[in-house]
Amino acid sequence: MTEKFCPGFLTAGIHAGLKSDNKEDLGLIYSEIPVACAGVFTKNLIKAAPLLIDMERIKSGYCHALIVNSKNANCCTGEEGMAHARAMTKSVAVRLGIDEELVLAASTGVIGERFPIEKIDAAIPELVKSLNDSDGKAFARAIMTTDTIPKIVSVRRKVGDSFFTISGVAKGSGMIHPDMATMLCFICTDIKATPRKLYDILTVASDKSLNRVTIDGDTSTNDMALLFANSVSKLSIEDSSVEKAFEEGIEEVMITLAKMIARDGEGATKLVEVRVTGAATKEDALKIANTIACSPLVKTAIFGEDANWGRIIAAAGRAGVLFDPANVSLFFDNAMIMENGRPRGAEAVKKTDEIMKKEEFLIRLDIGAGGEYEESVYTCDFSIEYVKINAEYRT
Amino acid sequence: MTEKFCPGFLTAGIHAGLKSDNKEDLGLIYSEIPVACAGVFTKNLIKAAPLLIDMERIKSGYCHALIVNSKNANCCTGEEGMAHARAMTKSVAVRLGIDEELVLAASTGVIGERFPIEKIDAAIPELVKSLNDSDGKAFARAIMTTDTIPKIVSVRRKVGDSFFTISGVAKGSGMIHPDMATMLCFICTDIKATPRKLYDILTVASDKSLNRVTIDGDTSTNDMALLFANSVSKLSIEDSSVEKAFEEGIEEVMITLAKMIARDGEGATKLVEVRVTGAATKEDALKIANTIACSPLVKTAIFGEDANWGRIIAAAGRAGVLFDPANVSLFFDNAMIMENGRPRGAEAVKKTDEIMKKEEFLIRLDIGAGGEYEESVYTCDFSIEYVKINAEYRT
Repeated sequence: MTEKFCPGFLTAGIHAGLKSDNKEDLGLIYSEIPVACAGVFTKNLIKAAPLLIDMERIKSGYCHALIVNSKNANCCTGEEGMAHARAMTKSVAVRLGIDEELVLAASTGVIGERFPIEKIDAAIPELVKSLNDSDGKAFARAIMTTDTIPKIVSVRRKVGDSFFTISGVAKGSGMIHPDMATMLCFICTDIKATPRKLYDILTVASDKSLNRVTIDGDTSTNDMALLFANSVSKLSIEDSSVEKAFEEGIEEVMITLAKMIARDGEGATKLVEVRVTGAATKEDALKIANTIACSPLVKTAIFGEDANWGRIIAAAGRAGVLFDPANVSLFFDNAMIMENGRPRGAEAVKKTDEIMKKEEFLIRLDIGAGGEYEESVYTCDFSIEYVKINAEYRT
Repeated sequence: MTEKFCPGFLTAGIHAGLKSDNKEDLGLIYSEIPVACAGVFTKNLIKAAPLLIDMERIKSGYCHALIVNSKNANCCTGEEGMAHARAMTKSVAVRLGIDEELVLAASTGVIGERFPIEKIDAAIPELVKSLNDSDGKAFARAIMTTDTIPKIVSVRRKVGDSFFTISGVAKGSGMIHPDMATMLCFICTDIKATPRKLYDILTVASDKSLNRVTIDGDTSTNDMALLFANSVSKLSIEDSSVEKAFEEGIEEVMITLAKMIARDGEGATKLVEVRVTGAATKEDALKIANTIACSPLVKTAIFGEDANWGRIIAAAGRAGVLFDPANVSLFFDNAMIMENGRPRGAEAVKKTDEIMKKEEFLIRLDIGAGGEYEESVYTCDFSIEYVKINAEYRT
């Protein structure tokens, strides 16, 4: 892990007056040269204005700058919202002297409120002025909503005599049902790669990371993950050893960010991996793991440190996957609480209760469906604080 | 509404020592003659022991008595649990001098704990002794878990010169994701009907009532609805005017019970009808209504009396139904907050905030998809109390 943000990329994060508490709420990533880029976007039918613009612009495969604001999602804001999203990118382009079509935008916050374009416009000169090549943390703070910690990870890898860097920044804290809480993820690297290649790698890595936290995946109105490659290092993805190292590096960055998101879930006190084994297909394993990981009754039991494991079994039973209850075994970390469909008694419950007191643990369900497939999903507990946060979010 | 329970049925509810607070936890319904009956059961792959027994026995179409306990679900209890469920019905049969095969059983409570058959066995003499023809409330209390009020409704209807009665009792309080919280519903009537006819009517009425509260419908491990008809009145369902009156009556009873369940949802402070209109098909309308009604972010906003309506739109957008966001309008009761995809401004938000302070209100989403179909789902808010209840349920 390196401290510096990826070489060749400048970042900034300032307070533009959107958040009421003087914290950063407007961020910028800028490369001195246009960079290859790729993105994956929400599949929600309702898409925020900046996404509609980005999805068009990213078709070129290149990008010069990215502006992101928190506090307002610029979603369900009609034609005016579209105009505001365009205006935001234009202001950045004018100030930086670059092509507006190469500026992307992202927003996160409340849906359906008028977009505060005037405040953002007024802040852009200062935003551009504060671009720097330090650690990117001000940018990471600028995209936070209910997140309690900035989420930023860099890895540096050597191939032959050269190095490449991958720096990733993410936000997303509505872990409990994150399909509606915006998840943003921006990754910068200095390798050389085509937009097409970046897209393939981003898609695969997202499926192993962000889509394992967000459960229903990509369904918020504002979700997006973007990958930028500026070719500043001497390494090209056309070299197969670079490709392999890069794929591993991006997975490490994205899985780390995904776990940070789960760990920092709204009101979360615990990070839990739900792993389903013994499935006949990958899809079966994932379907059951998602159903368990999404269940409010399982999540409240985790919060209560209560080994009410029947809720886990019942969630598995309604996942829409056929299996024989008599072949099912359930573990908390390495402690077995149910073996082949039968509870293992008070001693096992006691051991499980102990494990549930930990801040991180594993729930593993073997469905004994005669298969070798296993899949994991990361989730957190469902706390009183979650309800408080979301009952009072808009105000 | 009548006070007395349906003629010809005796009920009882006593404390058998399962609940720690001296409240009723064991209930019995008994008819002096075997009655025609029909049932619908959970579709969860994991089924509690009593359900497995009932599903076999109900094939005969007749039933003499029903015993129900709360506090323990007798689910994931293996062969021992099956033996205990059978033993419970046998004790009742022996004491009442009836055929064991005509006794049905239901259980609700914690999954996976050993079934307390000894306590139940010991209590059956007293249970049988306390059978009475009064209002059925002791039975209604005996089947409660986290419910805060007993749920019992009777209607009496006249056809020609004769009367018939329908008395329904229900429990279910895990409204938030009730697909895992047991919902039990038992309906007694004194009309004459065949088991087949009862099944058809129960299925249709369930779809309009219980399945509109339970959202994912019938997916808990212990859910069931049973309908008993003892022919004690002079009215037969073969008479088409009786059939019509009976269908209306049973819908009234079951919708009333369904709303009582939603209103008494765990920790609930509000009852909200989510109605989707303008859909091209019934399925589309129901899919969107369910997605909105299930969304924790919508439910926490309702708890916070916060008209964060963007969450409603976003939930609709991820329901998997195609519609044009530019044609969507949203109402709280009669107040329109979004018209053809555009917010209506501060005045509308203020009016909506007022409506959200009510204990009951309507959220209506017109998706403008050129159809005439509309469907409603009943839901409640998602409160701090919900988390408290479910974090500490087992203990």
